[in-house]
Amino acid sequence: MKNNLAQFLAKRAALNPRLEALVDVATGRRFTYAELNSQANRMAHALTGLGVRKGDRVATLLMNGLEFVETFFGGAKIGTVLTPLNWRLVADELAFMLTDSGAETLVFGREFRTVVADLHARGRQGTAVRTWIYVGKPADRPPFAVSYDDLHGAASARESEIMAENDDLLYVMYTSGTTGLPKGAMHSHGTTMWAVLTLCATADLRFKDRYLICLPLFHVGALTPLLATVYVGGTHVIMREFDPVRIWQVFQQERITNALAVPTMLHFMLQTYDATSPDVSGLRWILSGGSPVPVPLIERYAKLGIEIHQTYGLTESGGPACLIAPDEAITRAGSTGKAFFHTDVRIVDERGADVEPNVPGEILVRGPHVMLGYWNQPAATAEAIRDGWLHTGDVAIVDGEGFVYIHDRIKDMIISGGENIYPAEIENVILGHPGVAEVAVIGVPSAKWGESPVAVVVSKDTALTDQDVLGHCAGKLARYKIPKRVHFTEAIPRTPTGKALKRLLREQFRESAPE
Amino acid sequence: MKNNLAQFLAKRAALNPRLEALVDVATGRRFTYAELNSQANRMAHALTGLGVRKGDRVATLLMNGLEFVETFFGGAKIGTVLTPLNWRLVADELAFMLTDSGAETLVFGREFRTVVADLHARGRQGTAVRTWIYVGKPADRPPFAVSYDDLHGAASARESEIMAENDDLLYVMYTSGTTGLPKGAMHSHGTTMWAVLTLCATADLRFKDRYLICLPLFHVGALTPLLATVYVGGTHVIMREFDPVRIWQVFQQERITNALAVPTMLHFMLQTYDATSPDVSGLRWILSGGSPVPVPLIERYAKLGIEIHQTYGLTESGGPACLIAPDEAITRAGSTGKAFFHTDVRIVDERGADVEPNVPGEILVRGPHVMLGYWNQPAATAEAIRDGWLHTGDVAIVDGEGFVYIHDRIKDMIISGGENIYPAEIENVILGHPGVAEVAVIGVPSAKWGESPVAVVVSKDTALTDQDVLGHCAGKLARYKIPKRVHFTEAIPRTPTGKALKRLLREQFRESAPE
Repeated sequence: MKNNLAQFLAKRAALNPRLEALVDVATGRRFTYAELNSQANRMAHALTGLGVRKGDRVATLLMNGLEFVETFFGGAKIGTVLTPLNWRLVADELAFMLTDSGAETLVFGREFRTVVADLHARGRQGTAVRTWIYVGKPADRPPFAVSYDDLHGAASARESEIMAENDDLLYVMYTSGTTGLPKGAMHSHGTTMWAVLTLCATADLRFKDRYLICLPLFHVGALTPLLATVYVGGTHVIMREFDPVRIWQVFQQERITNALAVPTMLHFMLQTYDATSPDVSGLRWILSGGSPVPVPLIERYAKLGIEIHQTYGLTESGGPACLIAPDEAITRAGSTGKAFFHTDVRIVDERGADVEPNVPGEILVRGPHVMLGYWNQPAATAEAIRDGWLHTGDVAIVDGEGFVYIHDRIKDMIISGGENIYPAEIENVILGHPGVAEVAVIGVPSAKWGESPVAVVVSKDTALTDQDVLGHCAGKLARYKIPKRVHFTEAIPRTPTGKALKRLLREQFRESAPE
Repeated sequence: MKNNLAQFLAKRAALNPRLEALVDVATGRRFTYAELNSQANRMAHALTGLGVRKGDRVATLLMNGLEFVETFFGGAKIGTVLTPLNWRLVADELAFMLTDSGAETLVFGREFRTVVADLHARGRQGTAVRTWIYVGKPADRPPFAVSYDDLHGAASARESEIMAENDDLLYVMYTSGTTGLPKGAMHSHGTTMWAVLTLCATADLRFKDRYLICLPLFHVGALTPLLATVYVGGTHVIMREFDPVRIWQVFQQERITNALAVPTMLHFMLQTYDATSPDVSGLRWILSGGSPVPVPLIERYAKLGIEIHQTYGLTESGGPACLIAPDEAITRAGSTGKAFFHTDVRIVDERGADVEPNVPGEILVRGPHVMLGYWNQPAATAEAIRDGWLHTGDVAIVDGEGFVYIHDRIKDMIISGGENIYPAEIENVILGHPGVAEVAVIGVPSAKWGESPVAVVVSKDTALTDQDVLGHCAGKLARYKIPKRVHFTEAIPRTPTGKALKRLLREQFRESAPE
């Protein structure tokens, strides 16, 4: 058998044909492994019929659902390279990724027909796309697009030849681009298989688990768990998008055992939870990451009997880097745990030397699941992967027992009066105030200190004052770490995975330079 | 991280240091992963101190217990090649394996000091062993041997360097030799890792499972599950040897979730089970193989609420080849299921062409866990592995839905009047008679038919007659398959894994040629 992610689906279909593979919550569609594998075969044959060949990039602009999964596995069988686009982006951003990847095929959903019409109107100068495949109500199909349902329905379900393995590319995923232009992280069948293996060996994922996927599948943080669910023989229950009201019902109705959620989603879910909420006793854990998970949030879920397992990872690592062990999710709340099973991490200083425990430095990641490099970016690749180690640009510490605590992006670190200040530490303290819903701490220019920390706060309570916040910090933080000013705002701008867009905040509050 | 089986132990110790790793039932010793890893480090340093180097074969003549596990993992760290000897063999057989492997180090238990004294007395002409390491009471240590406890106790527990990976040899295991001279199957860290991965992906093994190992660890059927338990982060509970009385208590006291047993052991255990036996509701499954598991046996366990999962494998495949899925263990009793996740199987005729469903043929196995070859036997290796497929010498059929049924060794097949007769089919029918404890069907020479089937029966009931047995077969088997004679005997000679030694039976009953 080849190490091909779609052959893993075919194998699971051979072993457990009648086991439920996929539940598409939005449409109520349910597929066994035998059926899902047939659906993937249809897409493999449909793409082949369109002239798509091994190595070709196939882009998607799809919300979570069956069609994404079919396109992923169908393409993987014949060796196409999935380029899943973030549908929160605007036309210019999408055009950049389409052009950069050279994708000639785009599978898109009805919701995105306006932006796709814009992309189509740009012609061959705008993107390389020749084949536009439309998913949705026939009446709304743009004239330039072919119907996904027609193509797929007409194709054979017979087992597709497996045309790719190990070193062949499987997907190119653009990093969220909080800084600079997006870059396409290249993952092969081999790197992806190892991402799945290291996740399965570390995360207590079991045969017949039922995994709720409510993060967008264009993120590695959702895609890798979905692939791991296929690998172990579980059921993936897919929500079109995150819905904090409906999710509690889905937990119960679908007997969910595992789920994914970024911290922002965990915040929203707490607001929709009440004492009459459904029974979630079968829910073994929720994996959370994307940004450090505030300790108070983990503690509030623990009181509901729900374990939040903090993880840390990157598109460049295929997802996995660090994970907290189940035993330690509560006792070590705030730590992202240790390197995954098939993964190594180190913390180094500016010169690349390992630092002592509890000293902050850049976290490096190594493992067979690290990307091959950035698409068409040899210089950026050489900068990111040196001596086999992925340089993450994130600041972390490791304590004396090997537990990793992620602090911040290196770029978000504040240097004030020669002292390094890590915003996450201050944010954790401020979140402990019961009137605070969200907070981001940024550095703003200061004539006296170089930079000074400033807190941007979303309050639960309109009566909350800056003095309340600062008084809460007193005694909990060294004086130089206490924010020089508190700004109240309606919402903190974030990436889809919940990372605060500090670059935007720094621009917004630049003029407020204190002291 | 390197793909080294002992580094997997070190990794598990880093991730879950306080998790119980090993329980040695005979001595009551218990070790966490941190402790077991330290024990392995001591053995790595002790072996290095004795001058043992990467690539050297280290033989063991040990019953199941801590010292076997320490020697395996300690040696694996520094790249030695374990040669675990079957302690049921006699001195000449052991001398053959020691000489063939070239092992210069032998770790042996007190129980075997007499046979080891014999081996030692043969000098350097007899075996290549220079270093004899004795495990047991100090008073009984032979003068030529060094004390395991002294060596191990004096060695450092600091983390050992990892000196082997992927393509480096990990163990040479001699096949049971039901035919011809034993051959040493060579497994590397890579083939063994894949045996573990394919087992974990197929067998529903979980984090914190508690796996009872009561089969001898010199068999791959016990060794691979032990390694898989370390990989997933479970606890292996080791019995010195199989004890059908004590095992029911161990199931309960140690909260066993998984176990191993060959069919003979399952037979014995039924005899010691009674209605007052301990609660075994936590026991999820027992993996059984080594020889086909009789359907009535599976059914009797099902009535006790215990699932028997039939598996098929070989030393040459590192253990895994076929396994029945949990859902089908009862409904498809008698089938050994389908190929493991990372494994392929085919059934071929004498010319190597795939046969139709339900037509018997030789079963071939392919996967990254198949051995590198036989130690010092290039011709036998070339015969066993052709075009990447391991030729097993076993006869099987696959039905229309892909379920494999193992029949017999090709050598045990009976050809009578031009018809192929598969003894297992007849044995399954005869075992359905309530007065039959054990049965083996063999072919004996017949002037008229070439060969004729004869049944060798162990009865539960002294009143059982040959007519009872033959009457039971009538209507259940085609006339040519019905044994021409029934012999009653006290016991059927078997290999330690429960395979009937049909070669011996054929010699014993050769003179009884019927018709």
